[in-house]
Amino acid sequence: MPMTTRTVDFWFEFGSTYSYPAAMRLAPLAKAGSIAVRWRPFMLGPIFSDQGWDTSPFNLYPAKGRNMWRDLERICLALNLPFTRPNPFPQNTLHAARVALIGLAESWGEDYCRAIYCAEFGEGRSVENEETIANVLQDLRQDARAVLQRARSDEIKAQLRAQTEEARKLDIFGSPSFVTADGELFWGNDRLEAALNWAGR
Amino acid sequence: MPMTTRTVDFWFEFGSTYSYPAAMRLAPLAKAGSIAVRWRPFMLGPIFSDQGWDTSPFNLYPAKGRNMWRDLERICLALNLPFTRPNPFPQNTLHAARVALIGLAESWGEDYCRAIYCAEFGEGRSVENEETIANVLQDLRQDARAVLQRARSDEIKAQLRAQTEEARKLDIFGSPSFVTADGELFWGNDRLEAALNWAGR
Repeated sequence: MPMTTRTVDFWFEFGSTYSYPAAMRLAPLAKAGSIAVRWRPFMLGPIFSDQGWDTSPFNLYPAKGRNMWRDLERICLALNLPFTRPNPFPQNTLHAARVALIGLAESWGEDYCRAIYCAEFGEGRSVENEETIANVLQDLRQDARAVLQRARSDEIKAQLRAQTEEARKLDIFGSPSFVTADGELFWGNDRLEAALNWAGR
Repeated sequence: MPMTTRTVDFWFEFGSTYSYPAAMRLAPLAKAGSIAVRWRPFMLGPIFSDQGWDTSPFNLYPAKGRNMWRDLERICLALNLPFTRPNPFPQNTLHAARVALIGLAESWGEDYCRAIYCAEFGEGRSVENEETIANVLQDLRQDARAVLQRARSDEIKAQLRAQTEEARKLDIFGSPSFVTADGELFWGNDRLEAALNWAGR
C-alpha cells in the first residue's frame, strides 16, 4: 500500500498492554475517517534497552504498573473488551511478531494481530508459546506448521530487525505509536483519535 | 469542604507539563458534571526520587521528552491555550506550591494555580522566581510581601510536606492525578473526563 497523505502507520509491539485496546479500536475508527492504516509490528525490547530498561517500565516502576493494570481494566470494561491480566508480563513476542509480518504481507495479518492481542490480554494466555500462535493460525485457516517454519527464516528475522530499526529512527519509544504521512508522531491508545484526525486534515 | 461522593481530589505539581491543560480544563468540566474538586498541590521531586529519578523523566528519556513537548503543543493548540516551552525545565516549584496552600485555604487559590501554570507554560516564565509569584499575587490583589513571608513559615512548610506524604500513600506517582471519594486513582490530563465520570456515577 503506498503511503498517501490519508495514511497512518500503526507501530505496535505485542507485549504492550495499551496496544490491545488500540488494536481493537483502530479499524472501525480509521474506516469512519477514510484513513488507510499500515500495521507495523516491531520489538520494543531493543528500544527499552537503549533507555536502560531490561523489562517493562510497568515492572520497573511498581506504582505506575499498579495504576496501568487498573486503568487498562477500566478501559476494557468501557469498551466491552474481555480482560485478563497475563502472567508472565511482559512476554517475549519475537515469534508472534515474525508471524505477523508474514500475515500482513498476505490477507490475514490484521485478524491475526487482533487475535494475538485477544489471546494475551483478553484471555491471559501466553503468546510466547508456539502452541497459542498455532491455534490462532488454525482459527484463521492457515497452515500453522508452514507459517511457523517460515517465521524462523533469515528473511523474516531480518525484516523484523529492519522494521525495529526503522521505528527507532522515527523516534518511537513506546507502543502503540501512530505516525502520519507528514511525520507526526502520536503515542498511546489515548492518542489514536488525534492521529487519525491529523491524517484526515 | 467535606469529601462527598461527588468529589474529586486534583493532585498537581506546578512543574508538570500535562498538568497545565488539566488545570485549565478542570473547573468547567467539573461544574458541568456537578462534581466538587479539591485542589491538592504536592511535590513530585521526593516521589520521583523514590523511583531513582533526579529530574523529570522527560529529561531522562529524550525521545519521550521530544514527543511530550510536541504533544503538549498540539494539545494547547486544540484548546486555544497559549504555549511557550519554559527554560529551565523542570523548575523548582517549592515556593509556588507553598503559596498555593495559603491561597487554597482562602478564596484566591484556584485562580492563583491557573495563573502560575499560565505564566510557566503559557508564557515560559520562571516560577522558581519569587518575582513571578509576586506578580501573580498582585494581579489577584493580594499582599504579595505578606503572603510570600507566610509561605516561608514552618506551618506552611510542614503542611506541604504532609500533603506530599499523603500523595505518596495514595500511590500517586505523577501529575496530574485525580482521586475519587471511593479511592479510584486516575493519572494524566487525558484521564480527567474518566475521573469526573467515575465520581458522578
